[in-house]
Amino acid sequence: MTATRTVELEGHIIDSGMMQRAFGLVMDLGGDFEVEEFVVGKHKDKTSHCRMAVSAGPDEDDAELQEILHELHQIGANLIDPVDARVVPAPADQVVPHGFYSTTNHPTRVRYESEWIDVENIEMDCAIVVEDDGDDVRAYTKVLNAIEEGDLVVTDEAGVRVDPPERPRDASGPFGFMQGGVSSERPSESLIKQVAEALEETKREGGNVLVVAGPALIHAGAAEDLARLVREGYVDMISAGNGFATHDIERGLYGTSLGMDMETMEHPRKGHKHHIYTISEVIRAGGIEEAVEEGLIGSGIMYECVQNDVPYVLAGSIRDDGPLPDTITDAVEAQNAIREQAHEADMVLMLSTLLHSVAVGNCLPSTTRVVCVDINPATVTQLLDRGSSQAIGMVTDIGTFVPTLADEVLTGDSSVTDGGEDAEEDAADD
Amino acid sequence: MTATRTVELEGHIIDSGMMQRAFGLVMDLGGDFEVEEFVVGKHKDKTSHCRMAVSAGPDEDDAELQEILHELHQIGANLIDPVDARVVPAPADQVVPHGFYSTTNHPTRVRYESEWIDVENIEMDCAIVVEDDGDDVRAYTKVLNAIEEGDLVVTDEAGVRVDPPERPRDASGPFGFMQGGVSSERPSESLIKQVAEALEETKREGGNVLVVAGPALIHAGAAEDLARLVREGYVDMISAGNGFATHDIERGLYGTSLGMDMETMEHPRKGHKHHIYTISEVIRAGGIEEAVEEGLIGSGIMYECVQNDVPYVLAGSIRDDGPLPDTITDAVEAQNAIREQAHEADMVLMLSTLLHSVAVGNCLPSTTRVVCVDINPATVTQLLDRGSSQAIGMVTDIGTFVPTLADEVLTGDSSVTDGGEDAEEDAADD
Amino acid sequence: MTATRTVELEGHIIDSGMMQRAFGLVMDLGGDFEVEEFVVGKHKDKTSHCRMAVSAGPDEDDAELQEILHELHQIGANLIDPVDARVVPAPADQVVPHGFYSTTNHPTRVRYESEWIDVENIEMDCAIVVEDDGDDVRAYTKVLNAIEEGDLVVTDEAGVRVDPPERPRDASGPFGFMQGGVSSERPSESLIKQVAEALEETKREGGNVLVVAGPALIHAGAAEDLARLVREGYVDMISAGNGFATHDIERGLYGTSLGMDMETMEHPRKGHKHHIYTISEVIRAGGIEEAVEEGLIGSGIMYECVQNDVPYVLAGSIRDDGPLPDTITDAVEAQNAIREQAHEADMVLMLSTLLHSVAVGNCLPSTTRVVCVDINPATVTQLLDRGSSQAIGMVTDIGTFVPTLADEVLTGDSSVTDGGEDAEEDAADD
Amino acid sequence: MTATRTVELEGHIIDSGMMQRAFGLVMDLGGDFEVEEFVVGKHKDKTSHCRMAVSAGPDEDDAELQEILHELHQIGANLIDPVDARVVPAPADQVVPHGFYSTTNHPTRVRYESEWIDVENIEMDCAIVVEDDGDDVRAYTKVLNAIEEGDLVVTDEAGVRVDPPERPRDASGPFGFMQGGVSSERPSESLIKQVAEALEETKREGGNVLVVAGPALIHAGAAEDLARLVREGYVDMISAGNGFATHDIERGLYGTSLGMDMETMEHPRKGHKHHIYTISEVIRAGGIEEAVEEGLIGSGIMYECVQNDVPYVLAGSIRDDGPLPDTITDAVEAQNAIREQAHEADMVLMLSTLLHSVAVGNCLPSTTRVVCVDINPATVTQLLDRGSSQAIGMVTDIGTFVPTLADEVLTGDSSVTDGGEDAEEDAADD
Repeated sequence: MTATRTVELEGHIIDSGMMQRAFGLVMDLGGDFEVEEFVVGKHKDKTSHCRMAVSAGPDEDDAELQEILHELHQIGANLIDPVDARVVPAPADQVVPHGFYSTTNHPTRVRYESEWIDVENIEMDCAIVVEDDGDDVRAYTKVLNAIEEGDLVVTDEAGVRVDPPERPRDASGPFGFMQGGVSSERPSESLIKQVAEALEETKREGGNVLVVAGPALIHAGAAEDLARLVREGYVDMISAGNGFATHDIERGLYGTSLGMDMETMEHPRKGHKHHIYTISEVIRAGGIEEAVEEGLIGSGIMYECVQNDVPYVLAGSIRDDGPLPDTITDAVEAQNAIREQAHEADMVLMLSTLLHSVAVGNCLPSTTRVVCVDINPATVTQLLDRGSSQAIGMVTDIGTFVPTLADEVLTGDSSVTDGGEDAEEDAADD
Repeated sequence: MTATRTVELEGHIIDSGMMQRAFGLVMDLGGDFEVEEFVVGKHKDKTSHCRMAVSAGPDEDDAELQEILHELHQIGANLIDPVDARVVPAPADQVVPHGFYSTTNHPTRVRYESEWIDVENIEMDCAIVVEDDGDDVRAYTKVLNAIEEGDLVVTDEAGVRVDPPERPRDASGPFGFMQGGVSSERPSESLIKQVAEALEETKREGGNVLVVAGPALIHAGAAEDLARLVREGYVDMISAGNGFATHDIERGLYGTSLGMDMETMEHPRKGHKHHIYTISEVIRAGGIEEAVEEGLIGSGIMYECVQNDVPYVLAGSIRDDGPLPDTITDAVEAQNAIREQAHEADMVLMLSTLLHSVAVGNCLPSTTRVVCVDINPATVTQLLDRGSSQAIGMVTDIGTFVPTLADEVLTGDSSVTDGGEDAEEDAADD
Repeated sequence: MTATRTVELEGHIIDSGMMQRAFGLVMDLGGDFEVEEFVVGKHKDKTSHCRMAVSAGPDEDDAELQEILHELHQIGANLIDPVDARVVPAPADQVVPHGFYSTTNHPTRVRYESEWIDVENIEMDCAIVVEDDGDDVRAYTKVLNAIEEGDLVVTDEAGVRVDPPERPRDASGPFGFMQGGVSSERPSESLIKQVAEALEETKREGGNVLVVAGPALIHAGAAEDLARLVREGYVDMISAGNGFATHDIERGLYGTSLGMDMETMEHPRKGHKHHIYTISEVIRAGGIEEAVEEGLIGSGIMYECVQNDVPYVLAGSIRDDGPLPDTITDAVEAQNAIREQAHEADMVLMLSTLLHSVAVGNCLPSTTRVVCVDINPATVTQLLDRGSSQAIGMVTDIGTFVPTLADEVLTGDSSVTDGGEDAEEDAADD
Repeated sequence: MTATRTVELEGHIIDSGMMQRAFGLVMDLGGDFEVEEFVVGKHKDKTSHCRMAVSAGPDEDDAELQEILHELHQIGANLIDPVDARVVPAPADQVVPHGFYSTTNHPTRVRYESEWIDVENIEMDCAIVVEDDGDDVRAYTKVLNAIEEGDLVVTDEAGVRVDPPERPRDASGPFGFMQGGVSSERPSESLIKQVAEALEETKREGGNVLVVAGPALIHAGAAEDLARLVREGYVDMISAGNGFATHDIERGLYGTSLGMDMETMEHPRKGHKHHIYTISEVIRAGGIEEAVEEGLIGSGIMYECVQNDVPYVLAGSIRDDGPLPDTITDAVEAQNAIREQAHEADMVLMLSTLLHSVAVGNCLPSTTRVVCVDINPATVTQLLDRGSSQAIGMVTDIGTFVPTLADEVLTGDSSVTDGGEDAEEDAADD
């Protein structure tokens, strides 16, 4: 007799594609299902409900069934059995118990002593640790390298519930306009206008905007426009790398005397010497903030960040020159800094960087608004594949996107600057 | 004893790269060279001169030497011997004599009865036909399918001279800013400003602007801005396909009632039915001009073309629906129409189309200004590889490029419309 | 009161995604639905059934409802009302009546005098013409340019039924391995092996294999391997362009003497002169077949086609040189030739050509097996977006794909050649 | 009066393009030149020599002239004046003196106390430090973060000579076949054959082969073939990231039971849980070597590295899970490890990774053989743009490239394994 387990799905399970994926998964993995109950929402604002028994194929063992249940779980098909999650102590630091539960990026609850507890700081590919100090029970995610010996780690899918966000019922809101689609065949200016509206809405609601940016933004001539957005309060945090900050500062340092290339393009050389010397001078000053204070840096994105108390994380990489004193060279430490930013963000603009966008995207819950912009469709696709389901991809030129966005946002009679300040206060409360 | 021929190169042969290519070619093809004379221009405004004897490798036959001479010729290294070009009658319609001379796209002369004659309508990969009616001697290019039995076709390289255009000495002119380079890592807005300046300069000088455009321009939302440029006299000719015209007309026809997609993007479906019906309606009217006259078409690029007497060539392709009555379905006939446009153009903007850009590019002399814009770097590279040496490639989003260009051109206090009218008169004289 | 119409969906409507698309469509287009009946298939081999009433939004008119019904229809949600299809005579040649029904590429039936008739030669974006000569009633597709005045053209969706192919229940068959997915992150050799199996299976079953190929295949060095596949009976038809055939023939003509580039790559020049001269020589001979007969062409893909009676269609394009006498220069005529090939094909290999692949894909029913191979992911995506739902996309190097495929197919102890001959007989019967 | 300095160029300065670049640079930067002497090599095996006086433009100051001289220097035009290099003590740790000399990746000498000294460990974008302990004088490169207060750092270009490698005279050697070109339109199998020959030649000569690889290689199904190359002695070092090693190990760990995807592709899920668990298990074992010893890892690339004493560097990144204990998480430390590998390598294969390839490429002298393989042409171009002039780019599918390369190398009657052993002994001596 084959083992069978019962799962249930609830919500807009048909038009969100959840039902399709569930059936597909079972069949892909060689399993079988029997629908025990299926109640379809009769109207578009009614949810549906499905309960089905799942079994592995005739020649498969229990491991196969676990695999099916695991995959079903990832997409929001939860085991029906009202059992507690099984917790097992971690055998050693950075080592998870066999069969540990690996998180999705969707809102998640675990059942512990017959109570459903929300999992804090949800983020994909983490373990869930339950902390019970007698009075208070908490469940939160931990990345592998933060696991300590003895941590109570959730294993298997039983007693864990996942609620993937659903397709917005109302397509008229700014983020209803495109569900995860990517295309270079769309009206670019209309799309940018909608991103501007989403940005303004986020600020009006006191939300935090995180900009993730790569050096191509500077090369494409968009630095001044991003600096304006920082100055006017539309950017609450920046996540970038050593190269991004250095190119921005170099543009300021050499802009008047030698860096004519950004304006007239008459100097085609790369000027690596300027690059190294820029870093050397910032090291001499002691860091970016100090270099702003002593007047070495007088304009640009990093300058506006310092002047407007916009925090930035500069993560190091093996292709960096220098690096700047502000750059976090240790990958684990940098990830932790990025993780904090990601958890505070309500909207994320990913601008022309694959590495940093993936790093930030890995830490985002699926409920955060994300816009990815790159001229390379492969980059946008790769980001969306790993990102949250509301992510919007746009294949366009960063050198025209940022100016158009800044014009759109900064020329209306918007009261956003106030909202921006509120947002900063909110962020400070976190 | 190995056969040897002497060639000479003249001009800015070092900084144009001609000398490097000449040496490289001989060595790539296994040949040998001996420099007999080399006079280098001492200043940047002085030309250089080189005369060298070329031979095939020791084990190679005369065919090898011919191959080397052929390739050297392509880049402007001309045989020194002051002999007449050899002309041979074409053996049949569309058949060239053995060893026929195949043109480059550079200014070319042939020596006939001891006189050097300019070759008319120069274009690459053609034969040169010499016409001597006793009084008057002419030389002009003919594509293979235009060759008629008995045409006097030039064979071999002897008696033919090619003068490739040289690198501009003065880098400050609009087309001095970038010699054939392509990059997505350049300041986009500055580049567009320079394209705008080149466009204005061309019109001021009474030149003709040819726009080559693909349907992606319409999908990207840039139709209205291109229509403005047509209306204001900045576009003298359009070269496109059946799909481009149909999408443009469809946008106008369904814009108010159903085509909400271009503005609000709420209707994501493709609407192929509209596409077919648009073509059907234009066929019913008898053609685009008739459809404008009867009021069916009331806006858009094609509308402005009809209203402003801007001629267009719509070339057919095997993926077309319909096609429209205006579309030239025969490839050879369409090429001939494109060829005429290409010969009249002083500046060509290639916007988001590989097929039509290559077709136009094939007919252009290397002295025509060309700007290629596409979001796919491979398209831009492929166009430049076949194009003229002054071609400028820009990897950007057509949906932001055209609006930015139109704003740049149409918001100054430019007197270009007058120039535009002159240009049309000039074109009419051709 | 809002107008309401009832549609029904039947089959594996959940796991094929049909149900999700149906709900999504109604909401995207601002409409509303009420599910009247929903019977879900309890097991994976049971079909589901849904009947729902659809209405346009409160402020929308009947045109909106028609739009919704049209889009629902495209994906297989058919109007329930058992009415006859409405047929209207075409008002003129190449002009369709208002509201004409535009086909999908799925199996389709129309209701005529209370009988459901299969639509012949189904192909997307066509009109359906009903022919009733008293005795016999037929329905078939016609492209716009084939419509004649008085043709009885089906209008609206009522009385038309569409049956989209469903997701294969059994994932173990060769084409079950990947449903429409595209990825460059897959094990390439395993994928090629599965394509080889599908190819062999098609031949074993007496099916016809159509190869659609671009010139990049020749440049990438895969000509000899494709020629082997033709010789051994694995290719029944070829669809290509003038450039493809010319490069293939040129490789043969100049292979020994000058065309060393394909082997040693020591001759980097393009050799356009060879290209033109090749065409000229074939014109002189009178065509490809004649050139094979007189011994001018002695190897290569076109040679094997002639020797093995494998028919080919060479479609012209505006970037062609020449063209060859075999090239069909009129786009409409070429489309008709391509259409015939497409209708005869049971499996289509699209190799490194966007233009020809789209042209062939436009004529294919959604039940034909399609494999698209290109190194550019954008090409593969674009093809699949327009193609049938079983299409398999593979992002790989054509220069290694074809040799690996040929080795896989030709080194087993396969009895496919017989099957190939049967297939040809079958094709002859069409 | 304008300041003037004299530079000279020597070698195959015309066909290497050096002369063209020199003239172009001076003009791009608004300067002027006067050729004082130009002796051209009369035959292809004779070098040329040029001496020219360079001045800044009339309105430019000395800084402009320095800029011109700096850029000329980068390409091998050296100041003629026989002066010593100017050395200035570094003012602080990681801070360079004003006007420091920034290295190219070409062989370089500095003049110190009237002697020309070779600069050791040449690498681009570094400072040159001169160490004079009385007896012995050395000059070597230092990256910015290695500079210590008081280091004698070379400033300006005077007293420094650069010798860019020249175009190979003999095009028949394996690396003569393509000078820095990239193209997807080349015969792929012939190219791979030539890479195989270069690999074999490198091993026969006792050279070291460094493979730089990304996780796409594993996903594309090429792991087993790379493992074979390691086992047979064709790979001396591997440079990769945490993801590469984890995917390789995961493939081994789950290959038999769950990881069916690599063979049958029936399990389309990403299996992130396996990924995390793989890392956790290696952490438990204590590292990759320990995991091999305890039998956890029994096959794959990392397994062969451990078994065959092939050293590997795994550099961390902010998108890593885990990481593995072997991964170097600090970017500066990782760069140093990569630098050591790069300096020992005689041939580098860069396989499907942009980040690691750029990091390795930054540390390579221009005399090391480099082959870059990626399916994305932008990646290959970006690598070559920064790489050495002999670098060969190939746009192909890594999933067919590695198997074809391995077959080519491992099926001949090659005596390479011996050479490989010699090479390892050589490497041990370093």
